[in-house]
Amino acid sequence: MDHDLDLRLDGPALTAALTDIASVSGEEGPLADAIERALVRLRHLSVTRHGNTLVARTALGKKERVVLAGHIDTVPHAGNFPSSWDEERTRLTGVGTSDMKAGVAVQLRLAAGLAEPSRDVTYVFYECEEVAAERNGLFLLSRDAPGLLQSQFAVLLEPSGGVVEGGCQGTLRASVTATGARAHTARSWMGRNAIHGAGAIIEMLRAWTPRQPVVDGLEYHEGLNAVAISGGVAGNVVPDSCVVTVNYRFAPDRSADDARAYIRELFSPWEVEILDVAPGARPGLTEPLAAAFAAAVGGTPRAKLGWTDVARFAELGIPAVNYGPGISEIAHTPGEYVETAQITAAEDRLRTWLSA
Amino acid sequence: MDHDLDLRLDGPALTAALTDIASVSGEEGPLADAIERALVRLRHLSVTRHGNTLVARTALGKKERVVLAGHIDTVPHAGNFPSSWDEERTRLTGVGTSDMKAGVAVQLRLAAGLAEPSRDVTYVFYECEEVAAERNGLFLLSRDAPGLLQSQFAVLLEPSGGVVEGGCQGTLRASVTATGARAHTARSWMGRNAIHGAGAIIEMLRAWTPRQPVVDGLEYHEGLNAVAISGGVAGNVVPDSCVVTVNYRFAPDRSADDARAYIRELFSPWEVEILDVAPGARPGLTEPLAAAFAAAVGGTPRAKLGWTDVARFAELGIPAVNYGPGISEIAHTPGEYVETAQITAAEDRLRTWLSA
Repeated sequence: MDHDLDLRLDGPALTAALTDIASVSGEEGPLADAIERALVRLRHLSVTRHGNTLVARTALGKKERVVLAGHIDTVPHAGNFPSSWDEERTRLTGVGTSDMKAGVAVQLRLAAGLAEPSRDVTYVFYECEEVAAERNGLFLLSRDAPGLLQSQFAVLLEPSGGVVEGGCQGTLRASVTATGARAHTARSWMGRNAIHGAGAIIEMLRAWTPRQPVVDGLEYHEGLNAVAISGGVAGNVVPDSCVVTVNYRFAPDRSADDARAYIRELFSPWEVEILDVAPGARPGLTEPLAAAFAAAVGGTPRAKLGWTDVARFAELGIPAVNYGPGISEIAHTPGEYVETAQITAAEDRLRTWLSA
Repeated sequence: MDHDLDLRLDGPALTAALTDIASVSGEEGPLADAIERALVRLRHLSVTRHGNTLVARTALGKKERVVLAGHIDTVPHAGNFPSSWDEERTRLTGVGTSDMKAGVAVQLRLAAGLAEPSRDVTYVFYECEEVAAERNGLFLLSRDAPGLLQSQFAVLLEPSGGVVEGGCQGTLRASVTATGARAHTARSWMGRNAIHGAGAIIEMLRAWTPRQPVVDGLEYHEGLNAVAISGGVAGNVVPDSCVVTVNYRFAPDRSADDARAYIRELFSPWEVEILDVAPGARPGLTEPLAAAFAAAVGGTPRAKLGWTDVARFAELGIPAVNYGPGISEIAHTPGEYVETAQITAAEDRLRTWLSA
């Protein structure tokens, strides 16, 4: 079925329309089609499609260019599709409302309404943010067509409660393996129980104290958690191996290499394998463009603790922040919602910034 | 292919012949067929088949009847099939040599050679000892045809190093579950990590001191081990559940109910589910028939720590012991072997006992 999007709807109504076009990661086609049809009608934008990712650019010859980016996919439905309004129409509930159809609605409203913004603008609507990094539309774009992302500053419209969230923490996963020696459990003293041995790994995790460094004026909060554990051979065998998978969330004053070295050192009594690592991004709010943006939209910037695609812009050398309607804490929950007032406020403030 | 067994071979040669008829649990058919053909030729025995389990009985009208029982299945091959002799023919290596084709060879040699034993004898050759209890041939027989097992005393020819092993320890498996609260690992302090919580379960296991009670004159040695652990939701989620599976090996002065109550009490801070329990068996060497047997075969009886089918006889009210050639410690290992001298010695001593 072809969907049609009416960009003259107000932000909240457009959010509801976007929410009601299902777009679970990998199935963004119909929504990408609808967004593409709406964008190509706008004469002041040139539109490029890359898979289910769309890039729409003004070409006014301004000396500054900024990116407004948002992903169009959602996590799987959890009995919360389609969306529903509360009685006073102050709150829209449904999968993807906060994360991040509301942000996409704001992007589309600005794209339609700002024929002559004060800076050139590149609007990016991308696929597969909620799944493996290698399918992420922004990653694919940065790999295959980085020129389309060229800019001096980027705003990701991820839900940030309407305040600027700067930078992001890095994330590293590693397996830490305790070994032992198999034996029959009837004579367990002839072996060495690797699960019992892994108790010391868990003790290390329990005793760990998080760093809370201040980076470029924002306070981060690290985390180190076991996210999986497995061990066992059979119901009557003392196991010889137990693997604890840990996830280290590190503040952006540490590089990916710093994080690798730290985890190897911390768990040096055991076998450590680094499974994956994504660097964080410093908030960069000391950069003039970012500082000007923060001043324009107001509020007190705070540190972004989760990993977000701002790190991809950081890798391209482009300062980036998160700023959008919605609440990240309720994203991915069955009760996910967004408040009308936040949608309207975010649109107003971004419009003011891009008109000044 | 039909296999033919020549019961005039000596014990070690017959062990090799039996070893070379593959009989991994569930695939005992060809070996059961061969044993059946060999037994039905013996006019002094009446033979009953039950699945791949065979029962051969003398019917001399003696006032005492004893059972000699052994399982004919093996664990899966591990590059150790067929068997091979060392140069001096002192050691036969191969899957099932110790556990327990050597014992089966002794049973068959006695069955063929003792037309008029001093006590009536019931020889049991049963299937599926190495797998789930509900497929065990001795269990099926005790359920479906318990009359065939009627006797005053039973010997299981499990590998016991040629000494009498009395009784057996019970075994209980339970799952112990630590719970927590999910959260995104970027804000892990909003959740409660169940894997970290399971650290206290492991601490309990590490700190546990085994009981070593003396029962009917034999010293047992209990064991309590984690045999499996699992937990984890996703690489970026603080997990809300971690399950530790424990195996408690308990001395036969405790009943199955005692063991259940003990484990529930020990792990009372957590959710405990008893997965299965098999009671042990007291050694019973104070019973006159068992004591006479132990005196006849010689050596110093020791406690059986592993669970064996003697517990099934105990449930039928029949005193039972383990006595057979082979070494239980190397059973189920790729290097499993049996020594010629043990096979011959076990046969000689059992023959002496059954002739007296």
